[in-house]
Amino acid sequence: MKYQISALVVMLVISAGICRAQSNTILEDFTPAVTNQPGQAYPQVNSQGYARFRIHAPQADSVIVSLGLGGRGGTRLVGGEDGFWTGTTEGPMDEGFHYYHLTINGALFNDPGALNYYGSTRWESGIEIPAHDEEFYALSDVPHGQLVQVYFPSKATGTVRQAFVYTPPGYEKSATTRYPVLYLQHGWGENETAWPKQGRVNLIMDNLLGGGKAQPFIIVMTYGMTNEIKWGHIGEFKIDTFQTVLTQELIPYIDSHFRTVNNRLGRAMAGLSMGGMETHMITLAKPDLFSKFALLSGGLYTPEELSGKVKPDLIFLSCGSRENPGRVKEAATKLKAAGFNAVSYVSDNTGHEFQTWRRSFYHLATLLFVNR
Amino acid sequence: MKYQISALVVMLVISAGICRAQSNTILEDFTPAVTNQPGQAYPQVNSQGYARFRIHAPQADSVIVSLGLGGRGGTRLVGGEDGFWTGTTEGPMDEGFHYYHLTINGALFNDPGALNYYGSTRWESGIEIPAHDEEFYALSDVPHGQLVQVYFPSKATGTVRQAFVYTPPGYEKSATTRYPVLYLQHGWGENETAWPKQGRVNLIMDNLLGGGKAQPFIIVMTYGMTNEIKWGHIGEFKIDTFQTVLTQELIPYIDSHFRTVNNRLGRAMAGLSMGGMETHMITLAKPDLFSKFALLSGGLYTPEELSGKVKPDLIFLSCGSRENPGRVKEAATKLKAAGFNAVSYVSDNTGHEFQTWRRSFYHLATLLFVNR
Repeated sequence: MKYQISALVVMLVISAGICRAQSNTILEDFTPAVTNQPGQAYPQVNSQGYARFRIHAPQADSVIVSLGLGGRGGTRLVGGEDGFWTGTTEGPMDEGFHYYHLTINGALFNDPGALNYYGSTRWESGIEIPAHDEEFYALSDVPHGQLVQVYFPSKATGTVRQAFVYTPPGYEKSATTRYPVLYLQHGWGENETAWPKQGRVNLIMDNLLGGGKAQPFIIVMTYGMTNEIKWGHIGEFKIDTFQTVLTQELIPYIDSHFRTVNNRLGRAMAGLSMGGMETHMITLAKPDLFSKFALLSGGLYTPEELSGKVKPDLIFLSCGSRENPGRVKEAATKLKAAGFNAVSYVSDNTGHEFQTWRRSFYHLATLLFVNR
Repeated sequence: MKYQISALVVMLVISAGICRAQSNTILEDFTPAVTNQPGQAYPQVNSQGYARFRIHAPQADSVIVSLGLGGRGGTRLVGGEDGFWTGTTEGPMDEGFHYYHLTINGALFNDPGALNYYGSTRWESGIEIPAHDEEFYALSDVPHGQLVQVYFPSKATGTVRQAFVYTPPGYEKSATTRYPVLYLQHGWGENETAWPKQGRVNLIMDNLLGGGKAQPFIIVMTYGMTNEIKWGHIGEFKIDTFQTVLTQELIPYIDSHFRTVNNRLGRAMAGLSMGGMETHMITLAKPDLFSKFALLSGGLYTPEELSGKVKPDLIFLSCGSRENPGRVKEAATKLKAAGFNAVSYVSDNTGHEFQTWRRSFYHLATLLFVNR
C-alpha cells in the first residue's frame, strides 16, 4: 500500500527537548523526579520546570544530558573533584514526560538514577516535569481498573505477540456486562508499554471514571511496528502486516477473551504520531470495523478520502500548540462543514511529546461511546 | 517481631557470577542474548554458556562487566581503537538468568545493549544463558493465561500498592469457576516484576497447564519490602507492616476482585530468598490463612515450630546444588519423620539465582492444589 506521508513527516519533527523561555532566577526548590529509580536523589526538578542532573563519572572528559536547549546539543554537565558531574537545564522544560540519555566521552548511556522507558527503539531514561494539570494522570484514591498483559497468536508474523488490555473498574464484578473497545497505538520507536507507562492511560481513565466524566470502555494496546523503520525513513513504512495483525488476529482474540461490544459502533481506533498514521490507514481500509477515529499529532482526515464510505460518528484530531495547530483546526472545520462530527483539540505549551497525548487522550475519552 | 536469621543469611550469600569449570576451547558460535534490547548485537552467548560483551566507551581507561569469575572482580574488557571494549567471560556461566552491570572508570552503568531487570534495589542489566531445560519456561504455542496489574489500597502504608495477578488460561471464559491462589514473593532488592520477568512464572504455568502437568491456580505477586533494608542488614528486617499489607489488605482485595477459593485450603504461600523468610514468618504467624508453604532458597521449617498449629498439607523446601542442599534435604527428612508432607528439591548446577527458582517453581506447581 502506497501512502502520502509528506505532511505527516513534517509534523513528526520532534519538539521534545525545547525549553520554555529562560527565567532570570532559578528557584532552589529542587526535589527528586517522580520518575527516579527507588531511593535515587537525582535527577531533580524544581517548581519552575528546570531539571538538574548529577552523574558519577570520575575521569570522564565530557558528560552531556540530551535534554535542555535542543539547538545547543543538550545540557553540558560540569565535573567536580568528587567524580560527580552536575548541571541544570538552561531553561524550564515543557511540563510532562521527556525521554533522555547521557553522552559520556562520546558514548551513549542511560542515567543510573532514572527509570527507563521505551522510545527511539530502545529503553531510555525518562523524567517527569511537574505540570499544573498533573492531577488528571495521578495515581489517586479512586477505583482502579486492571491492566492485563495478554499473549495472542499471530500467523501473519509467525510469532506470539503481546498486548495490554485495560479493563475499567468493576469489569471483573460482572459476568454479563459488555464494553466497547478503543484500539490505541503508540508512536515510532515506542512499543505497547508507551501508553500505560509514559501515557499513564490507565490512570487517566480511572480518574475520569471516578469523576463520572467518561463512559467505561476497554483499551487495547499492542506493538505497531512489524517492519523495522529507522528514524527519518517513515516513508518506507508498510501497513499491510500490522493491519492484518490488528484486524484479523488481535480484534478476534480480544472479542473472544473479553466481554466486548463486538461491532463497529462499539469499536474505536486512535494513535499518536506514527500510530495516528496507522489509525488513518486502517480506518480508511477497514471502514466496517471502527466508528470513531482519533489522530493525536498523527495527521488529518479529509472529507474527500471519507466520501462514499460508512460515516464515522466521531473524528478527533489533536496536537500540541508547538506543532501545527492551525492545520488540525482547519481540518476539523472542513470536516464539520462536510457534515462530519469532527472535534479538534490543541494542548497548550506542548509539542510532539507525551503531555500533548495525555491531554489529548483525556479529551478524547470524554467523547467516546457516549451515545450508546 | 524478632527473628533468628543466622542460617538464612548464610544461604543468602550470592553465588551468581560463579562460572563453571573453564573449557580449553571457546566455540565461536556466539549469538545475541535473548535478553538484549531490540536489534542489539551484544551481549552474546555461545552454546557452552560463555558470555561476550561489547561496549562503546571511547576514551575510557577501564570497562569491567560484573559477571565472570566472581573472585576476580568480573570480566575486564579490552579497548580497541574503534572505541569499543570487548571481552568474554573466563569460563561458562551458570544456565539461566543473571543480573549484571558495567563499571566504567569506576562509575556504574547499565549495558546499553541489554534489557533491565529490577534487582539489588535498582534496574540492572540482565543476560539469559541458554539452558538444556529452557523449554519449560519458553514462550510456547500453548494457551496463555493473563498477567493482570492491579492497584490495591493500603491503609497500613498510606499508599496505593501494585500487584501482578496471573490467571490461568480459560479463567476469563467462565463466570463461576473459582481457583485457588498462590501468594509468591520475590527476593531482597527485587520487586513484584521479578517473578514474571526474571522468573517467567506465567510462561512456566502456561507450559505446565498446556501439558496437563499441574492444576490451574491464580498467582499473586506484590512488593514485599515495606522498610528499606540495605544488603547485609537483613537482620533489621521487620515483617509487621508487610504482613498487614499481605494478610489484611491484599488477600481481601484479591478475594473480592478475582474468583478465588477463599479459604485456607485454597491458599498457598511461597517465596524465594528474603521472600522465603517472609513466607516462613507469615505462615507461622497466620496459620489459618495458608495450607501449603514453600521456601525457595529461603530457609527451613522445623517440626518444633509447627507443633500445636493447624497442619499444612504441603511443605516444599528447595535450593540450588551450589547452596546448601544437605540442609534442605535434612530438614525435609525431619519434617517427614514428624508426619508432615514435606518435599525437597535441589536444582542441579545452580546457586542462589533465578534458574534455581524457575525450576523450584516448576516442581512446586505440580504439587499445589492437586487434591481438591
